[in-house]
Amino acid sequence: MSKPRIKTYDRIILESLKLFNEQGERNITTNHIAAHLGISPGNLYYHFRNKEEIVYQIFLMYRDFITERLSVPETGHRTVTDLVNYLDTAFLAMWQFRFMFYDLPGMLSRNTQLQSEYHQFVNTELKGILGEHFREFIRLGLLKMDEEDIEAVSVNIWLVVKFWFAFEQTSRPRAPITEASGHRGVRQVLALLKPYVQPDFMDAYRALSARHAGG
Amino acid sequence: MSKPRIKTYDRIILESLKLFNEQGERNITTNHIAAHLGISPGNLYYHFRNKEEIVYQIFLMYRDFITERLSVPETGHRTVTDLVNYLDTAFLAMWQFRFMFYDLPGMLSRNTQLQSEYHQFVNTELKGILGEHFREFIRLGLLKMDEEDIEAVSVNIWLVVKFWFAFEQTSRPRAPITEASGHRGVRQVLALLKPYVQPDFMDAYRALSARHAGG
Repeated sequence: MSKPRIKTYDRIILESLKLFNEQGERNITTNHIAAHLGISPGNLYYHFRNKEEIVYQIFLMYRDFITERLSVPETGHRTVTDLVNYLDTAFLAMWQFRFMFYDLPGMLSRNTQLQSEYHQFVNTELKGILGEHFREFIRLGLLKMDEEDIEAVSVNIWLVVKFWFAFEQTSRPRAPITEASGHRGVRQVLALLKPYVQPDFMDAYRALSARHAGG
Repeated sequence: MSKPRIKTYDRIILESLKLFNEQGERNITTNHIAAHLGISPGNLYYHFRNKEEIVYQIFLMYRDFITERLSVPETGHRTVTDLVNYLDTAFLAMWQFRFMFYDLPGMLSRNTQLQSEYHQFVNTELKGILGEHFREFIRLGLLKMDEEDIEAVSVNIWLVVKFWFAFEQTSRPRAPITEASGHRGVRQVLALLKPYVQPDFMDAYRALSARHAGG
């Protein structure tokens, strides 16, 4: 018996994600996607009314990835290793769905369905998830911050994550987005936390930062 | 004798800046500008080939504002008052030319002349100006940072300034950009510096932060 083939619907989504990441969502049309897959535009339109619908389905994948893999486990964090794993997974999410961060304001303005669900996701779930991790790391004695710091630093972390790739693109307009660019973004986020790292954990912090060196 | 009237050329620039700030550059056409000024589109086109040329002239005003009013004075900084004045002027620059920060990647992609000069300005002059101020405040004993911190924090400050309004707009899509939004941005920048403020200057820091409260 032959292996079940991946369905055209799923192939369209996965290959679109690849093309968007490599060339930017703005520069890719449904015709590009169909040609890349070796299917007719008509076949693509049978599955998706337009590109916005493909983008929206990719957003749902991203949302599921975050809620399933980045929620704080019931037992809470126990060690620095948990922090490392958490940041690795967060980086993976950012990297795998990086096109969403190239020009988020522009993309949202062209996609009303995405816009409303994106805001709902960020303002309810994502903020909650980030806040929970923060408090875990403080409880663990890894970070020392008061409530005012937590609020301000959370906003800055979120801003850096959200606009890192756009920042790199406006700083170096013709340079492609590489994985090294992603690692530089992680280092900028870690730099936001550095002043709050407790002395006992400074070595672990430096080891963690070194994992993203060379970008 | 009657007062000399402001020239049509200058009126177009100043009123365009106002409209762009209030409604976003993307949403304003040359026809809107002409109608707002009570002149014919033909008269506007006599002065400017297109909207991009108006945007470019506004960028030159912004650049002059920064280089003339934000450069470190020859005598250097002397007191915390200098820091306050500097930050007030920086905030004024951001606020008066705020439309440039609403969607910078999109605006640059539509305006090649602006794109190349913008990058030249940021990568040479602006980075130099920011770095000089930083070192002055460290020399003054206001901040304590090592070279690694200076580099990382400078990048984060620049990122927050550059994307603050875009961040607010994607977080609260239908809310207008207000001056309070600008003050929130200043507080986020100050929060980046807070861990490095020396104890003797903590009161001055808190007073400075309070100037931007209530946003």
